[in-house]
Amino acid sequence: MSRDICIYQEFLTDAHRAQIEKAAGAAGFVPHFFTLDQFEAARACVQRCEVLYAHSPELLRAAPATLKWYCCSFAGVDPYCKDPSMFANPDCILTNSNGYGVTIAEHVVMVTLMLLRRMPEYEAVVREHSWSNQLPIRSIRDNEFTILGTGNIGLNVAERLRGMGAAKITGLSRSGRPQAEFDEVLSIRELDNVLPRTKILVMALPGTAETIHILNRERIALLPDDAYVINVGRGTAIDQAPLIEALNSGRLAGAALDVMDPEPLPKDHPLWTTKNLILTPHVSGNMTLGYTCDINVEMFCADLANYAAGKPLAGFVDRARGY
Amino acid sequence: MSRDICIYQEFLTDAHRAQIEKAAGAAGFVPHFFTLDQFEAARACVQRCEVLYAHSPELLRAAPATLKWYCCSFAGVDPYCKDPSMFANPDCILTNSNGYGVTIAEHVVMVTLMLLRRMPEYEAVVREHSWSNQLPIRSIRDNEFTILGTGNIGLNVAERLRGMGAAKITGLSRSGRPQAEFDEVLSIRELDNVLPRTKILVMALPGTAETIHILNRERIALLPDDAYVINVGRGTAIDQAPLIEALNSGRLAGAALDVMDPEPLPKDHPLWTTKNLILTPHVSGNMTLGYTCDINVEMFCADLANYAAGKPLAGFVDRARGY
Repeated sequence: MSRDICIYQEFLTDAHRAQIEKAAGAAGFVPHFFTLDQFEAARACVQRCEVLYAHSPELLRAAPATLKWYCCSFAGVDPYCKDPSMFANPDCILTNSNGYGVTIAEHVVMVTLMLLRRMPEYEAVVREHSWSNQLPIRSIRDNEFTILGTGNIGLNVAERLRGMGAAKITGLSRSGRPQAEFDEVLSIRELDNVLPRTKILVMALPGTAETIHILNRERIALLPDDAYVINVGRGTAIDQAPLIEALNSGRLAGAALDVMDPEPLPKDHPLWTTKNLILTPHVSGNMTLGYTCDINVEMFCADLANYAAGKPLAGFVDRARGY
Repeated sequence: MSRDICIYQEFLTDAHRAQIEKAAGAAGFVPHFFTLDQFEAARACVQRCEVLYAHSPELLRAAPATLKWYCCSFAGVDPYCKDPSMFANPDCILTNSNGYGVTIAEHVVMVTLMLLRRMPEYEAVVREHSWSNQLPIRSIRDNEFTILGTGNIGLNVAERLRGMGAAKITGLSRSGRPQAEFDEVLSIRELDNVLPRTKILVMALPGTAETIHILNRERIALLPDDAYVINVGRGTAIDQAPLIEALNSGRLAGAALDVMDPEPLPKDHPLWTTKNLILTPHVSGNMTLGYTCDINVEMFCADLANYAAGKPLAGFVDRARGY
């Protein structure tokens, strides 16, 4: 009897399919490919598959208890961790992709510079075919950064900020374990002590019970008046009402949110019209960058070899812990 | 008789003034400070000064033949080189400031990422309180950069692009002399050979007779269809009509111009409405970044010590050559 893989993805190129065929063959598996418009066919196929490579809660729910490994092509797996009933097999392995570091880090550098260099204001000047150029700006060199989350995203952000001469880069993680890319890594328990000296707060946290509203009203008040907040993790990590107040009153210098709560943001949501806020519709880490897709497939193929050999999987997610 | 310096600048802080007082005292000079609203007083003062630290063609024209050194606080000194009649003393030394590298390089990284990540299109989505996020984007990692000009600006740009993993960075300069920040430096005579493999062309050239319309219709045609053009040097370096055509027809992917010809751009100029173009009103290298001001003053003070000691000046400009 063959060992089968159901692959339900939109982003795969012919080269990616060939790469997966090859890795599957080497591991003793047969891959079956479906695009997002072939849900019914994918559902029929997954009934006899041991492995599912997708990002589809609906397809996962349709999979029987014989599914042993769900490889999620996204980084954020909070929906799967919050609801164990999605898995017919309680021991089903969950992996995620941590290949979004490059694209999200480039987004963070972009919005950091847009905020520091007053780009939204200059864009407004240009939209009026007008000319003025004397707004005070700031440099990455002169600012202390605090990065919440020191995973693949945080590391890639830190690397780039260091390359641009950031004054200081502090990482905050659960363990506080030192990592070379940061000037220092502290325990997330130090957050309240670090915020008063933070000029740019970059939030790259997974969506877990512990990260909900981690940036609350009290902590927003701890940030200096000239601080900026950038969120590329999960919208739920920020209590949005006090952030909106702080931005509209000028109590914070600005913010850039790529993630919000909820998404898509309703048409009449106050975030759309908040001052000094750069909003993007969750674009920092999706599959629109070729490199992200390439590394996603590479990681799946590498973990398929690990899986076949009974080795630990690089993308393993502790479903109880949430990341 | 005292040796006097006329200083006509808007950006100086009290700390800058103290720093200049100290350097002047050590070099045997007396500094006289004027802000831009004190032109008449500055003109009266410059009549007896040996040194002028300013960016004012008008004040320079008012200075007598006893002026021996004009330290221009800007990088672009083309107006002074084109018109020798500005100097009553034909042997007056001209220096410029090459301290704009950091701020201009940060601008270049910002607009590079905005172009690659389709930010103007996403900003239009957000302005309509709408939500869509599937535009294909590109990474700095995947692109070959060509930087025209390997001075302080080009070096700072190259350093930052390298830190973000640019696929290849080629510098073009008059000499073609190798510099560590670039993967290769070629003679500007190689321009036509380099353009067909250039994905992002960064122009940071001084305004000289040789650089006028260096990017002309024929050279725009040599760029690949998916190329971007970024100009932070002088607007005259680009023949704007064929660039506008190429952008509006989709023959080029996009451009970001911080300099134009003329400036300010007239209200009805076609650049305002050109497609896939990020316009900024000459903000990349002005005195709005504190670091730029600090280094400007530092360089003046260091060259003042050189001047007093009869040593070569670091900011020396060959007036005939134009940079």
